Parts: sequence; C-alpha cells; structure tokens
Amino acid sequence: MTLGERQGDEKNDSKYCGVETEFNDDMPQLLSLNIHGGFDFVVAPLMDPAYRPSLLVSSNGGSGVLPFAGSDLVLSPSQWSSHVVGKISSWLDLDSEDEMLRRDSEITLKQEIAWASHLSLQACLLPAPKGVTCANYARCVNQILQNLSNMQLWLRIPLEKSDDGNRSPNSMQGEEHRDSWEMWNSFRTLGEHHSQLSVALDVLSSLPSVNSLARWFGEPVRAAIINSNSFLTNARGYPCLSKRHQNLLTECFNHSIQIVISGQQMQNIPTGTSVSNSHNSNNQSEGVEGMQRHPLRSYLDYIAYLYQKMDPLPEQERFELGYRDYLQSPLQPLMDNLEAQTYETFEKDTTKYIQYQRAVAKALVDRVPDEKASTITTVLMVVGAGRGPLVRASLQAAEETGRKLKVYAVEKNPNAIVTLHSLLKIEGWEKLVTIVSSDMRCWDAPEKADILVSELLGSFGDNELSPECLDGAQRFLKEDGISIPSSYTSFFQPVTASKLYNDIKSHKDLVHFETAYVVKFHRVARLTSPQPVFTFNHPEDSTRKSNHRYTKLRFEIPTDTGSALVHGFAGYFDSVLYKDVHLGIEPSTATPNMFSWFPIFFPLRTPMCVQPGIPLEVHIWRCCGTSKVWYEWGVTSPSSSPIHNCNGRSYWVGL
Amino acid sequence: MTLGERQGDEKNDSKYCGVETEFNDDMPQLLSLNIHGGFDFVVAPLMDPAYRPSLLVSSNGGSGVLPFAGSDLVLSPSQWSSHVVGKISSWLDLDSEDEMLRRDSEITLKQEIAWASHLSLQACLLPAPKGVTCANYARCVNQILQNLSNMQLWLRIPLEKSDDGNRSPNSMQGEEHRDSWEMWNSFRTLGEHHSQLSVALDVLSSLPSVNSLARWFGEPVRAAIINSNSFLTNARGYPCLSKRHQNLLTECFNHSIQIVISGQQMQNIPTGTSVSNSHNSNNQSEGVEGMQRHPLRSYLDYIAYLYQKMDPLPEQERFELGYRDYLQSPLQPLMDNLEAQTYETFEKDTTKYIQYQRAVAKALVDRVPDEKASTITTVLMVVGAGRGPLVRASLQAAEETGRKLKVYAVEKNPNAIVTLHSLLKIEGWEKLVTIVSSDMRCWDAPEKADILVSELLGSFGDNELSPECLDGAQRFLKEDGISIPSSYTSFFQPVTASKLYNDIKSHKDLVHFETAYVVKFHRVARLTSPQPVFTFNHPEDSTRKSNHRYTKLRFEIPTDTGSALVHGFAGYFDSVLYKDVHLGIEPSTATPNMFSWFPIFFPLRTPMCVQPGIPLEVHIWRCCGTSKVWYEWGVTSPSSSPIHNCNGRSYWVGL
Repeated sequence: MTLGERQGDEKNDSKYCGVETEFNDDMPQLLSLNIHGGFDFVVAPLMDPAYRPSLLVSSNGGSGVLPFAGSDLVLSPSQWSSHVVGKISSWLDLDSEDEMLRRDSEITLKQEIAWASHLSLQACLLPAPKGVTCANYARCVNQILQNLSNMQLWLRIPLEKSDDGNRSPNSMQGEEHRDSWEMWNSFRTLGEHHSQLSVALDVLSSLPSVNSLARWFGEPVRAAIINSNSFLTNARGYPCLSKRHQNLLTECFNHSIQIVISGQQMQNIPTGTSVSNSHNSNNQSEGVEGMQRHPLRSYLDYIAYLYQKMDPLPEQERFELGYRDYLQSPLQPLMDNLEAQTYETFEKDTTKYIQYQRAVAKALVDRVPDEKASTITTVLMVVGAGRGPLVRASLQAAEETGRKLKVYAVEKNPNAIVTLHSLLKIEGWEKLVTIVSSDMRCWDAPEKADILVSELLGSFGDNELSPECLDGAQRFLKEDGISIPSSYTSFFQPVTASKLYNDIKSHKDLVHFETAYVVKFHRVARLTSPQPVFTFNHPEDSTRKSNHRYTKLRFEIPTDTGSALVHGFAGYFDSVLYKDVHLGIEPSTATPNMFSWFPIFFPLRTPMCVQPGIPLEVHIWRCCGTSKVWYEWGVTSPSSSPIHNCNGRSYWVGL
Repeated sequence: MTLGERQGDEKNDSKYCGVETEFNDDMPQLLSLNIHGGFDFVVAPLMDPAYRPSLLVSSNGGSGVLPFAGSDLVLSPSQWSSHVVGKISSWLDLDSEDEMLRRDSEITLKQEIAWASHLSLQACLLPAPKGVTCANYARCVNQILQNLSNMQLWLRIPLEKSDDGNRSPNSMQGEEHRDSWEMWNSFRTLGEHHSQLSVALDVLSSLPSVNSLARWFGEPVRAAIINSNSFLTNARGYPCLSKRHQNLLTECFNHSIQIVISGQQMQNIPTGTSVSNSHNSNNQSEGVEGMQRHPLRSYLDYIAYLYQKMDPLPEQERFELGYRDYLQSPLQPLMDNLEAQTYETFEKDTTKYIQYQRAVAKALVDRVPDEKASTITTVLMVVGAGRGPLVRASLQAAEETGRKLKVYAVEKNPNAIVTLHSLLKIEGWEKLVTIVSSDMRCWDAPEKADILVSELLGSFGDNELSPECLDGAQRFLKEDGISIPSSYTSFFQPVTASKLYNDIKSHKDLVHFETAYVVKFHRVARLTSPQPVFTFNHPEDSTRKSNHRYTKLRFEIPTDTGSALVHGFAGYFDSVLYKDVHLGIEPSTATPNMFSWFPIFFPLRTPMCVQPGIPLEVHIWRCCGTSKVWYEWGVTSPSSSPIHNCNGRSYWVGL
C-alpha cells in the first residue's frame, strides 16, 4: 500500500513499511492478513523456532535434512520476493560458550539462509549478536556472503549507547560501557565491509544523543524496527512518538531507510473512530468485509502520517536526486576542452553569475569614483571566458554602475570561441568586447588590466588549477589591479560514507582509492565541522611563493558521538570574489540555490575507526610538478595510514 | 678488514664495522684514513653542511643546480659502493614550522639522495626525525623511494623509551612520554612498509628494558650506531661496554646488524700497549708506516673482541642457515606423495625416532607384563610407514624390552612401498612385518591393533590432517588400544616479522596473505609466550566429536615492551607420544636437536599495532569440508581485522 507519496521523491524505498511477525506455518494466511492490514511486507520467521539440528540427528540416525520449513509453493515467486523478508531464528547464538548450541546455531543459520535464497527473498534479518564478542557469528556470515547471489543480510543492531564520555580504550570488554555501533563495526570489519551486509536498527524507547544517531546515516542502514512499546499515547488514546523519535524517523525517510513495526498492540485504541481522521491521513482504511482490523494498524497510520507530513523535496534536491552518492571524476578543464553540454549546465546557475555581477560592480565603483565615471574606461579581462556568461555579468555590472568598460574575453577552447563571436554579434557587443583565442598562461596582452575576472574553481577550490592559471594571467594585471576572485580556501571534513567506500572498493585497485571524486553526498555522516585547508590569494605579491602547500589538521569528533568510522574526507571551497561578496559550498556559509559544484570526496584506503577523545590528525599536500599538480594525503592519528597518491601516481590534474 | 670470522657464520654482514665521520671534501683521504684505521666502511656526509638551496638561488639568480658536492671521479665505483654509506645532512628538518627551512630540507634531501644514487652507494643514513611529527619527512622519503633503484635508506632512530607503563593512548603527543619506536612505526606506515626503508639504531649510554629492545629484532634494523661516549673505561684505561650493551651487541651480531662507531676518542688510551693483547684479539694492528693510529681504533678493537668471543654457531643452526626467514609452503602429504629426498631428510632426524622408540617401549611394557613377554604377541600397526623408520624404531623397542611384536606397515605412497619391501629383505624382517599398500582411511584390516604408531604431524600439529587420518585408522585399533602419539596440541605466538611481511607483500595478492608458511624464524621478535590452540586426542572416544575447532586467545604483551607491531603469529606444536615421552617444537619445551619441523607462520593482511596494556585477541578456526580442511583466523582486539582465508579460499589442505 505504501505510506504515501512525497512530491519529487517517488522512488524512495522508505515509503514501504513492514511488520515483524511470529512464526506461522501458514504463510499465505500470515501474508494476506498483514498485506490487507496495510503493510507492504512482513519480516517473518521461515523455520519453526523449536527446530534444533542436534535433536534431529539423534532421533533419526543422521540423514540430517528434514522438512524444517513449509513448501516454496505456498506463495508465488513474486510474493516471496516482494513481500517477505526472512527472519532468521532469534535463538541462534554463534558465540555461545556452549559448543552444542554454537554448532546448532551454525548449522541452522546456513540452512535458513539457503532456504531464503532458494525462495529468492530480497533480504533476511539476522538476529542481533548476543554477547560482547561476535567473531564466530561474523565468520559464519562472512562464509555465507561469499556464495550468496543477490540477497541482502540485515544485521539487527539495538540502537543504544551508554553515556560515559571518557572511557579507557579496553573497557569495550566491560559491561558498564555499551555502544552497539562498536559491535556492528567489529562485525563488518571481520567481514571486510561486504556490500550485501547491512543494518536493521532496533529503535528503542530511549534514544542516544543526536551526534551518536547521526553517525548511523553514513552506515548501510536498510531498516529501522520500531517496537510498539516505544510509542507514547496521545490525548485521544492513539499511539504517537516523542519529538526525538519523530525526527529520527524523518531522517530515516530522508535516507531511504524502511520502517518495520514490531510487537503487540499496546494502546487501547478507541473503537468507532476513523483513524484517517485522527492524523489527517490520506490512507483509506481498507476494511475488507469480514476481516479484522490489523492490531498494529494505528501504529502504521501514525508512521504514514509522519511520512506524509514531510515537506516536499526542494526543487534543487529533486534535480540532484540522480546524482546522490554517485562518484564522478573531477573535470580536467585545463587539459581537456569542455563540451557544450557542460557549458550549458554551468550557465544555468544564475546565482553564481549574480554574485559575479555584484563583485564586478563593487570593484568598478571602488576603482572609478562617480565623478570620473564618464571619462575613465576600466579594462576588464575575463580569463577563461567560455561561452560568455562572465562577459555578460561584467557588462551588466558596468551598465548597473554607469561605468565605462573595455572587455577582453580570453579563452583557450577554440570551440567556445566560435560561440563567443556569435554572442557578440547577437548582443551587439562588438565594440565593447575583444575576443582572444589563447591560453591565458601564454597570451601576450596588448595592455594591462584593471580587473581580472575568472571562474576556474573546482569543488576543492584550487583543484582545477586556478592558482597556476592566474599566476600566468597576473602578468597582464596592473600593479594595483583587482582579481575577482581575490581569494579562495578549501575545506576538509571527516565523514562516514560506507556506500562510497564500497563503490570505490568494488574496483579492486589502488588507483580508485587514491582519487578524489565529485559527489552529491546523501548517505553520509559528517562527523565534525569542516576546517580550512589551503588558501590562495590573487594577485599574489610574493615572487618566491610557490603553489605547493602543506597543511596538518586536527579534528575532534564530539565525544557524545561515540566511536565512528572515517571513510574519507569531504572537501569544499569558499571563495571571496571581492570584499564581502563571496561564493562557495562550505556548508556553514554555502551560497544558496547554486548547483555548479558538488562537494569532493577524498577516500581513505583503509577506513579509520576514531574513538571518543582521540583526535583525528590528517595531513594534506598540494604538490606541483612540471606537467601536473596533485594532492597527497594521509592520517597520523589515531594511527598512521599510508600516504595516499604518492607522486600523483593515481590522481593528478594536468597542467 | 672485518671484525673477525665466526665459525659457521662466514656470510654474516655484521662482521663489517663502520665509522661515522664529519664532512670532508677530500673523500679519498677520508676513506684511506678510516680503512687503514681498520674500519670496513665510512658513514660520511656527501654535501657541505653549510649548503642551503634558498641561499644559492638568491645569489646566482635561479640556475639552482650548483656543484654542491665533490666529483664522482675521486673514488672508483667499487670504492663508493663498498666503502661509503652516504650520510644525509643532519640539519634537515622536514617537519619544521619554518616553511623556508622545510622547503630547503626537502630540496636538499632529494639532491643528496640523487647524488648518492648516482654514485651507486649501497645505503644512505637519513637523520632522525626532529620533532613529534614526521609526516612531511615520511612523505618526501616515500616519494623518493618510489623511484629509487637499489639503494637502502637507513632511518636513524635513537634507541630510547621512557619507562611509564601506563599511559593514556593520546599521550604520544605529550613530551613526557617518549618511545622512539612509535616514531619509526608512524614513519614506515606512512611509507607503506617499503622494503628499502630500514633502521639505524642510535645506541645511547642508557638502554631501555630487555623486552623493549627485543621488539626491534623483528624490525628491519640494518645498523647500530654506538657513540664513543656510550663506552665505559676498564681498569686498564681501555674502552669497554656495560654487560647490557654487550648483550645487545651480541644480539645485533646474531641478527646481521652492522655496527657503526661514532664520536670522538673519549678515553685516554695508554700508549705503547698492544691493543691486541688487551682483549686477546686476533686483529693485527695494521700500523702502516708513518700513519697515525685511528683515534677510534681501541673502540673498534673492543667491538672485534666482542664479535670474536661469541660461541661458534651450533651445528644445527649452521645447517639451517640457508632457511632463515625463507617462506615455504607446507607439505600436502595426503594429496601429494612425498619424494625420496624428503624421506631422506626426515629419516636423518635420529632424535625423533629415539623418542618414538622410547614411547613404543613404554607402551609395550605397560601392555605386556614381564611374565607374559614370551607368550603374548603385540600387534602394532605403523600407519604412514613411509620408507620404514618407525617400523625400525618399533622393532628396536620390542627387542629392547624383550616383547614379541607383529608389525603391519601401512603406507599409501606406492613408491615408498617399493623401498619398504627392499628394507624387509635387507633386514630380514619378512616374518615380523606385513606391508600394506593402502590409504589407512579405507584399509580393511584383518585384525585389530594393540598399538597404532603414526607420525603425521605438521609444524602446527594437526595441519597435515593427522586427526582425519587417525579417525580412519581408529577403526582397527582395539577398544583399549594405544595410539602413539596419544595427543598433540598446537600453539600460537604473536610476532613482529617485517622481513616475512614484506616477502609476502611482494606477491601483491590476497592469496599469499592468507597462507600459512613453514619458516625458520630469524629476524623475528616473539612478543609473548605461546598459548595452546587446538588439542587432538587419540583414540577419540566420543562418536559425535568433529574435527572442527574454534579457539579464542588473549595475549598480553608485557607493558615494558612498549607498543609493538604484530605481523602475524608463529605456530608450533607439542605432542605427547606416550605418557611422559613427548616430542615438539614449542620453544619452552622443544625437543632438542630435532630438525624435522620449522615453525609455521600465520600472517596478518594488515599488521596490527598493539599498545601497552591493551590485549591482543585472536580467533582461530579449523574448518572441515568434504574435500579439504583449512584454517581461518582474525583479530578482534585492539581492533578487528578481516577474517583471513574465508572458506579456505587461499590456503587449504586436501583430504
């Protein structure tokens, strides 16, 4: 039935809601009851919970394989795969000290998953690890995963963390401290981050801190299971959730995490009232004649109400849906010529050009006082003019401020030059604008500029070699001339991003782990505030200055987060165009409604687990060779990583 | 000249002793002085320590490359490579806060190493990192190493560690705690354990604890530099070393670490006394006419004296020299038939067969009282008889004890059967011994045995599938029969073994990191006592028992060791042949003078750094499939590793 539709987000899996059930050997009836009750799928045990392999063997002399579950014929293949998530027996304890129980658990786990796989289920829910160690459980699951076709395994993890900020590193063994994330982290590390292993969070009635919750959104969480006893009762006797639980669920919806309701009906729901009215829900109460209302229906209705009351997805988010967590290699605009389609996309970003126009206007007014506006002609050079948007913004700024302008449009891409000539004719700018078909680094300018306008910025600021280009262009800027932008700064931020990590890992090579990617972050947890990395100023007065840079950053993850896994670093930039006019994507100061830049992602070859109170120290180098520029990066605390991208062996930008 | 010769260890590099010198632009004179002074090589600066690139550039306008060192022609190529280790300028500080100094250091480092490489030097000595961080230094060295042909880089590391056992994990930043090993570990981890990067330890006048010293012998230490001020003065006015320093040097000699003497003459050496007499040295005082005695000659003589007073290498060690740190794949004696050469080697191990003879003798006496010795014939079956050594040992035991014996020699290798038949004829054993050409797992025995004798043990006890074979053979052992061996236990011990790690890494695949190797350990540091892993008993009375095993071990590295890197686990076995007669290679109880088994090595894909006070927890599984048996292993503390060898994908033993 689905929880409803959210405008612009129709493909979001989280509109499907499931229900956890007890074992029932009449699967058709179980399914029908719950589907008619409004749920989209059931999370149901596949095998009688009384089954134990060790009992079987001794009673029938060793054949070992008995009909331990119902027939596959009771449902159609599509019913099995669309509506049933297999719930692996919860008595399993693969790390028990009792060897017999351990062996029974191991055999049963393999049998149940083999059965679920035979039924082509989409997923199985694995019971939560029982004790403080889970190595044998992890090993068995790991063995199974090696031969599993498409099925996902959801490891159930209770969403709990005790609140002691300061603990000794080996107190993980002790009972007093508990952070279920550490169990998950150990389990998935033992299993080498297998992409078919994900998490089903058991949402309990009390929630850990916001920071502690946030790290999960970078993990492969597929489902959140909410027991009916985590609900409150509203004034009218209906189930509802605390504000913090509501926020958590909204975040789940936003991260494509499906909700599963479990447990018994707790609230004593008033009879006769239409549930639809109670929460203003769009769901029709599908009261099939003669069928009883599902005991968890009011919980489902409440979840649907939360789903539907979300704001529609903003237009920009909708536009960028297809790019979420999709790794793109950064442009090489210096080595390669951009294509028309790329210009087309960039030119639509009106916000960006409005900022440029504002910056040019301010610079013009500063440079030429009102009283000289009609006599002085300012020489402005757009370096990297492309198909002309910055030429247009500059001319508009001149018109707006009443200043006289002479524009040079310098562009190295001969294809863009063609369009530029045509633009001049169409707009009648032939007398105002001189087109120069040249690389700015070697152009021999006929005069010097008052203002140099460029937009050579990458997601990480200097990563498309703006510094090297503007060093070349600075030759023809007057001593007191203005560069727009006048500076830009890159930023780094540690993130949990298991999806990106697995996508990179799937290439099975070093090169992909030493490359930075442009990516629209979605299933990513940002673990601290970003910190500035490199700053470049233009014009640069020091003659000895090189564009080589080295910075060491020290991040402190808030201690209430608990431990977290760092898969790499999100990179951003902010640029001062002129005085107070800036442009950028650093989250705290990001220019709104601008879509020219996604963030950049610098991965770590081995994700690093950072424990509370231990700083994360990272080193970043910008290295310059004769034909290329590249970054190297590495971590030295909590422990050292290899230096990534040594000598630019994997990732570089050509000069 | 060399420090002398040690019997059986003629190829040991540590017989060469070097001397650290100041910069001298007359290299031929410098070399001649020191070689004639008795040293084998000099560690000498290649460049004037006053040189700074930044000064140069400003004075000559930017050509940048000046003759910064002498000509390569002053020495012959073989002199450069045999007698000179380049000493990189000690003023270099690549992690200085002063950017100018950092840049100067970086340029100079590259120039000096390029020059040393041009001279084909065998090694360069890199100055010790100056501060608490070394990331930029490590990055530059890492860049250099990527393009370096054969030259070794020796990173100078002071051998020092403060004594605070219990410290918080992030106090590495603080000044109070200092463990230079951590600096080394960070440096080499940033550089991905490059095999051309090694250590030159600066031995200071006070030494850290024995445990703390021991971990270095698993690291790639190439040289130990001893300053003259670390020497004491003996009663006759000559330099000598403390007992602890002497022991350290002996260990260095044993691990092929070269000694370098540095500093000034401190002691006021009595003149006129023959140094040779003073330490009973074999060195002739090479007093070349007119040349002054080398000021450090008495230090060199003392080192030579220490070298020469070492015991000669034991015969077994000498025999095994060629196997040191050489990784061998374990035998597959069940799948493959052994070759004659292998039998030949094993049969020479008389100690082993003496133990078997003792065990059989005790079993015979227990089984048959003296008064029945002439009436009762004991049925003894040798399963896996090979070319007959256990048959011989059994018959000798019978003779020794005066018991009557009927022997079945069961062997699956048809080639060994040929030899067995010939042996019977030669020895006249035809009436005593019945040869059975069959796999013991499927032999249909005509009678049951009193005693089952086998030697199917691997370095890790059960790793050549002794349990599976003896399970098969147990069918024809009497209810109260005796198995020799009656049990065996495997052992695990965490080790630092950077040489082995690099050898495995050089294959650049997963398979080699998930394989166990038989290896004669040499440059290995054993970090704790071994702990038992799996035990198998024979005969096994439980019918339900499987040969699947799972053990979790928890190692506590002594806190005074400091942090250490665990590259993997050494594996051993001990076996109870019968009652108090045992056989094994577990170091604390190892059977002396036995050479049939080297230890086994289970590597870790990523070496794990263990800090003081944090336990090392490792899990080991013995898994049994229908056609193979394999181990899986993984670490869960201090952090989780992947499970190694999942499903036996990389390493297994065929059934």
